Amino acid sequence: MLKVSIAPDGKEYPIPTAEESEKERQLLVQITEEQRAKGRKIVAVQGLGFVGCIMATVIADATDKDGNPIYFVHGHQRASQRSYWKVPVINSGVTPVSSSDPEVPAIFHRTVVEKQNFRATSEESVYSLADIVVVDIQLDATKPAFGEAEKGYCDMTHFSEGMRMLGRNISPDCMVLVETTVPPGTCEQVVKPIMEEEFTKRGIDIEKNPPLIAHSYERVMPGANYVSSIRDFWRVFSGINQKSIDLCREFLTDVLNTEEFPLTQLDSTNASEMAKTMENSYRASNIALTLEWAKFAEEIGVDIFKVRDAIRMRKGTHDNLLRPSLGVGGYCLTKDPVLANWSMGALFDLEGSLDVAINSVNINDTMPLHTIDIIKRDFPELENVNVALLGVSYLENVGDTRHSPSEILVKFLQKDKAVVKAHDSYVEFWDELPEVVVEKDIAKTVKGSDVVVFGVGHKDYIELEPEKLLEMCGTKPLIVDCSNFLNDEKLNKYKELGCKVRGLGKGHI
Amino acid sequence: MLKVSIAPDGKEYPIPTAEESEKERQLLVQITEEQRAKGRKIVAVQGLGFVGCIMATVIADATDKDGNPIYFVHGHQRASQRSYWKVPVINSGVTPVSSSDPEVPAIFHRTVVEKQNFRATSEESVYSLADIVVVDIQLDATKPAFGEAEKGYCDMTHFSEGMRMLGRNISPDCMVLVETTVPPGTCEQVVKPIMEEEFTKRGIDIEKNPPLIAHSYERVMPGANYVSSIRDFWRVFSGINQKSIDLCREFLTDVLNTEEFPLTQLDSTNASEMAKTMENSYRASNIALTLEWAKFAEEIGVDIFKVRDAIRMRKGTHDNLLRPSLGVGGYCLTKDPVLANWSMGALFDLEGSLDVAINSVNINDTMPLHTIDIIKRDFPELENVNVALLGVSYLENVGDTRHSPSEILVKFLQKDKAVVKAHDSYVEFWDELPEVVVEKDIAKTVKGSDVVVFGVGHKDYIELEPEKLLEMCGTKPLIVDCSNFLNDEKLNKYKELGCKVRGLGKGHI
Repeated sequence: MLKVSIAPDGKEYPIPTAEESEKERQLLVQITEEQRAKGRKIVAVQGLGFVGCIMATVIADATDKDGNPIYFVHGHQRASQRSYWKVPVINSGVTPVSSSDPEVPAIFHRTVVEKQNFRATSEESVYSLADIVVVDIQLDATKPAFGEAEKGYCDMTHFSEGMRMLGRNISPDCMVLVETTVPPGTCEQVVKPIMEEEFTKRGIDIEKNPPLIAHSYERVMPGANYVSSIRDFWRVFSGINQKSIDLCREFLTDVLNTEEFPLTQLDSTNASEMAKTMENSYRASNIALTLEWAKFAEEIGVDIFKVRDAIRMRKGTHDNLLRPSLGVGGYCLTKDPVLANWSMGALFDLEGSLDVAINSVNINDTMPLHTIDIIKRDFPELENVNVALLGVSYLENVGDTRHSPSEILVKFLQKDKAVVKAHDSYVEFWDELPEVVVEKDIAKTVKGSDVVVFGVGHKDYIELEPEKLLEMCGTKPLIVDCSNFLNDEKLNKYKELGCKVRGLGKGHI
Repeated sequence: MLKVSIAPDGKEYPIPTAEESEKERQLLVQITEEQRAKGRKIVAVQGLGFVGCIMATVIADATDKDGNPIYFVHGHQRASQRSYWKVPVINSGVTPVSSSDPEVPAIFHRTVVEKQNFRATSEESVYSLADIVVVDIQLDATKPAFGEAEKGYCDMTHFSEGMRMLGRNISPDCMVLVETTVPPGTCEQVVKPIMEEEFTKRGIDIEKNPPLIAHSYERVMPGANYVSSIRDFWRVFSGINQKSIDLCREFLTDVLNTEEFPLTQLDSTNASEMAKTMENSYRASNIALTLEWAKFAEEIGVDIFKVRDAIRMRKGTHDNLLRPSLGVGGYCLTKDPVLANWSMGALFDLEGSLDVAINSVNINDTMPLHTIDIIKRDFPELENVNVALLGVSYLENVGDTRHSPSEILVKFLQKDKAVVKAHDSYVEFWDELPEVVVEKDIAKTVKGSDVVVFGVGHKDYIELEPEKLLEMCGTKPLIVDCSNFLNDEKLNKYKELGCKVRGLGKGHI
């Protein structure tokens, strides 16, 4: 039976046969030679996920002062049933990621079709052709127990295999730039030994040709400025030796907008790996603090969001205080503190732990339970209560459901036997909760509901008029606002129309 | 025996006799009448401490559009032996607080001597003459066990007496503006009932004349911009009823630079009291996070301060990440979370607690012990080890020792029988540790020392050349840098000169 990979749109792509693979490998050599002849350096991007595929286009889009592309980019994605489809999709000039940023489809078309200097492949031999490899493969934290992030760990098997694949293939002069967020210590203690081992197996003298490994983390933000958040933003970098540092600086200067957003060089990859996990731990702890004050505000008749605005008037010192909400989602704040905490013991054999960071993750991970507590004030028994959830992504106006707090909300509501319907105009399919149908029609979602939860601040929810919503409901549901999506005027309108209204951190309503 | 109050400069001031007090009361009435005749409103400031005395001058300094003073200000300080001296000192046109801000002596001279619209008194009858009372009396948190801020409480006896004094005296139309940082709930649940009780005793109908109580907290910062930090800064305010809110807005608009720094009105005094304690809890938690990462950095050869700078490149979202240091001092971050946590149970009968905020206070309060751990790496036994501490105030270039982390450092060093000498060019006398002589001569302090601790970033310490310091020491002491006061160049110089060097959060040295 022919193996296929199925794209999110349902289209099937056959996975290459051995014969096709052989042809592809020859083609890779030929393309690379042609591109080198044009004076271009060759970059291979490992992993074409949320970061890798956009980073690949940004590299391909970079030009010298005469407007000519500096690099030819091979994007590499393994020929798995889950992900192979990205290769033919990209090679047709189409983006494999959906985004509200119009620059995403544009930059794929520009680099793949117009400039023809970005191409995807599933052959690992591509790494033998590269001057630079950019590593964007995923590295997750595993949290085996809900609300106990201190037990979290990082399974490096897949990541290490990826590094071994590079070690088997790359030229000794090739610079490997790790962009993946990794536990501090990874480049020196995981990547370097693997490279040295593979180099040695291949007969490369690692004294004369020490592996060239750099680290520079992205700060990508899904949403309307997706591409720009990679290209036009501050970068931190370092390398395991001076040559790696120099090559990395040169490369990042070529491809990113470093004139407006200067690079920051740190002394070691330990330092740059730490910077990434610390900056996200900082944000996680910032949010964790807000929940306890939100609860306090609820009890004493205060609107925590107005308090927050008052505090944020202190420009430069207090204006980045984050907001309490349904919870914290996404790929960074939920896992980076865990990676760092795990590395202390696992990579450095230290006894301490990052208690503030880890405790913040625990508070944030369990935050959705507070919204259930709010609902239970009016529905102590949730069995057969119809709950309509507006928004399942973790961020407003974005369809990203990775580690979305809605997932916890829905799971615990269902545990209490509530009947949950979910809506999200940005989400086609809820990967993490495939059994939950994500409706596209608000009316269908809220019809007959006892509770309507505003979970995320998507534009269409913010703009929804109370009269309109209640008409669609056909009931007078409890309105639950998880993060100040509805202003006082709207909340009062719901009250006038006969609904009970509750808001997280809004004790005044 | 004549009772006297002794000023910090040693000068003695006799406390008024009954006869003198009677004369003073008559004088207050006469002055007030004269000032009213000039069209000025009368303000009484309760408490002439760090905030009250400067606030009083700022109010007196406020002028209408023709440049005429809007208010006459009576500053009130009780005739205690500890504090009465402030009254005659102020009335001579001299500041009772020492500050590096040249505007401090200037504004005292301007308002007391030139404009003659600020005068201090110890007679409580002054409150009966006021249109507005500004409350700036101290309200402390008590932390009965070191590192267990969860046991902290707020003894409101003294504060309540102050409120009762107002209730006994003020006109029913007088607006009381509480500027003291208070536990959330204080205005509504402590100040209001006391006022109502005292009004009722005086036969005032509290239905017709409900007390007028507002809350607006200062955000004063000791140092070179002391006066400006009161006048030219954002303010939050509210009141217990509409009239209080209106009067408070009018008053703050008169006296502060609200054109450049607009006021933020909140819905209730609960909210504005919460804003103050929350904003300081936010900062406290921000610092608490940094310590665990500093320790991690120390272990893995990373400079946390360079990591911090890299993170702070993210303008607007991450640029206020604070720095790890010897510890957290001052009057706000050390107590405000405790006030709020205590109020949950004591004023609102709630069961929850502000765990993130309180845990941050515990981390910060015990932070100085980490510097002792650093010293112990080289001196496992501290008995008879000569430790020279450079800097005992809690803030660079300021002489403020309130809750300074140096206090904990010195106490625990002494507990281990180290011989501690302390230096601070800004501190005359260490109120909190009176048995420790604060030297003015660095040479005398460091002579023969085994360890030199850079505790605070005073300018003279930052500028101190390694050769110079070691010459004064006559030894090769261990150099301990508590918060990146010495750059890599200086630290390397100390090493070259034969010293061992350690830095908090500096694993690379």
